[in-house]
Amino acid sequence: MTDPHDDDAPRPPGLTELRHRLAAFAAARDWQPYHTPKNLAAALSVEASELLEIFQWLTPEESARVMDDPGTAHRVTDEVADVLAYLLQFCEVLGVDPLAALEAKIDRNELRFPAGKPPGT
Amino acid sequence: MTDPHDDDAPRPPGLTELRHRLAAFAAARDWQPYHTPKNLAAALSVEASELLEIFQWLTPEESARVMDDPGTAHRVTDEVADVLAYLLQFCEVLGVDPLAALEAKIDRNELRFPAGKPPGT
Amino acid sequence: MTDPHDDDAPRPPGLTELRHRLAAFAAARDWQPYHTPKNLAAALSVEASELLEIFQWLTPEESARVMDDPGTAHRVTDEVADVLAYLLQFCEVLGVDPLAALEAKIDRNELRFPAGKPPGT
Amino acid sequence: MTDPHDDDAPRPPGLTELRHRLAAFAAARDWQPYHTPKNLAAALSVEASELLEIFQWLTPEESARVMDDPGTAHRVTDEVADVLAYLLQFCEVLGVDPLAALEAKIDRNELRFPAGKPPGT
Repeated sequence: MTDPHDDDAPRPPGLTELRHRLAAFAAARDWQPYHTPKNLAAALSVEASELLEIFQWLTPEESARVMDDPGTAHRVTDEVADVLAYLLQFCEVLGVDPLAALEAKIDRNELRFPAGKPPGT
Repeated sequence: MTDPHDDDAPRPPGLTELRHRLAAFAAARDWQPYHTPKNLAAALSVEASELLEIFQWLTPEESARVMDDPGTAHRVTDEVADVLAYLLQFCEVLGVDPLAALEAKIDRNELRFPAGKPPGT
Repeated sequence: MTDPHDDDAPRPPGLTELRHRLAAFAAARDWQPYHTPKNLAAALSVEASELLEIFQWLTPEESARVMDDPGTAHRVTDEVADVLAYLLQFCEVLGVDPLAALEAKIDRNELRFPAGKPPGT
Repeated sequence: MTDPHDDDAPRPPGLTELRHRLAAFAAARDWQPYHTPKNLAAALSVEASELLEIFQWLTPEESARVMDDPGTAHRVTDEVADVLAYLLQFCEVLGVDPLAALEAKIDRNELRFPAGKPPGT
């Protein structure tokens, strides 16, 4: 069985590579003065709300089918990209490692919410 | 100088690995019925606001120094983890690839905002 | 001159009266330097998310019954107060009249979305 | 009985009057099925973020001058109207009195944060 990522197929980008592209993008446009942690946290929150806006009037069932419509699917994908972009730029300016942060959080949550344990025991 | 990621040093987790751990975590607790795309988009937006809350009364300068205080640094890191966790879970239920989404967005933005071009040319 | 709310019943406070109380409250504590329009807009958004947090995992039906539980009802009421407080303080610092703003918006929307008009006519 | 706003000057609308207009507006367009408390809380949060978006890259000083530009001033006023509209509609469907909620909150905060008291006494 062949690795789907080898040969001539385009290699998917990694998080670190995208982080560096975002930093270079901002530097080339002199946008760093705007990229304070406070501004980036605000922008991240605004983009997360734009993602929520797509779903605000949908029933739970309709919300599960948003990718069926190409226009809505593109909008969802685009907002996901914006959220991830600001999250990575926020982490860049403060020196936070998002993957290590999430790993530590999952470790803590596995202790906090034991699986398969009947309530009250 | 040795590579910090070789030998016996713990390997940093990848995005895909964390995505699988989050999916397994939710499945083991029967949380999937709550994880509609709409609910996950709301939760993502709520966590992004909790990150913003840390910065809401700070000056730009103070916001750049939040990691100097261990308590605040922990809070920032914890909210980053929550935002990333809900973003990955949202992508999981809708089949969105966040890295491909961001790569495509950066490609588009490089065309849309040319670097180093004097305004008005 | 007669009070339209007469008798011995406690008179409900008006929006203007509450706006003045909030301004006096902030002034007495020297909080005005923190109350930039940007900070108040961030705080308003954070409080609106705290209200949303109460509903994020509920079904539409459960969300309609939140006031049945006294603890949740108190939490909802408290977050409504926080949202209104920051909205009024935001309006205060920028000289915006929220009632006139809303009246103008409803006027515009009545033209934009005619009622009872069959689609396509 | 005299109108306190008398003469020929246009009387400013009250919060109750606007609440009734919003309810009639939604009813005339059969929008009530969409107006679950959960959806209205999401919409309120989305509109609060749209207000924040105006300020996200501004310095504190620039944020204090947003009303100087007529286009930005209109945008701010419009978003204030949207936030207030969804807050009132949310309160309508759950039977919450926003003015009473805010009055009770100010009362509590006056006890919680005594004014003019030196720290540590």
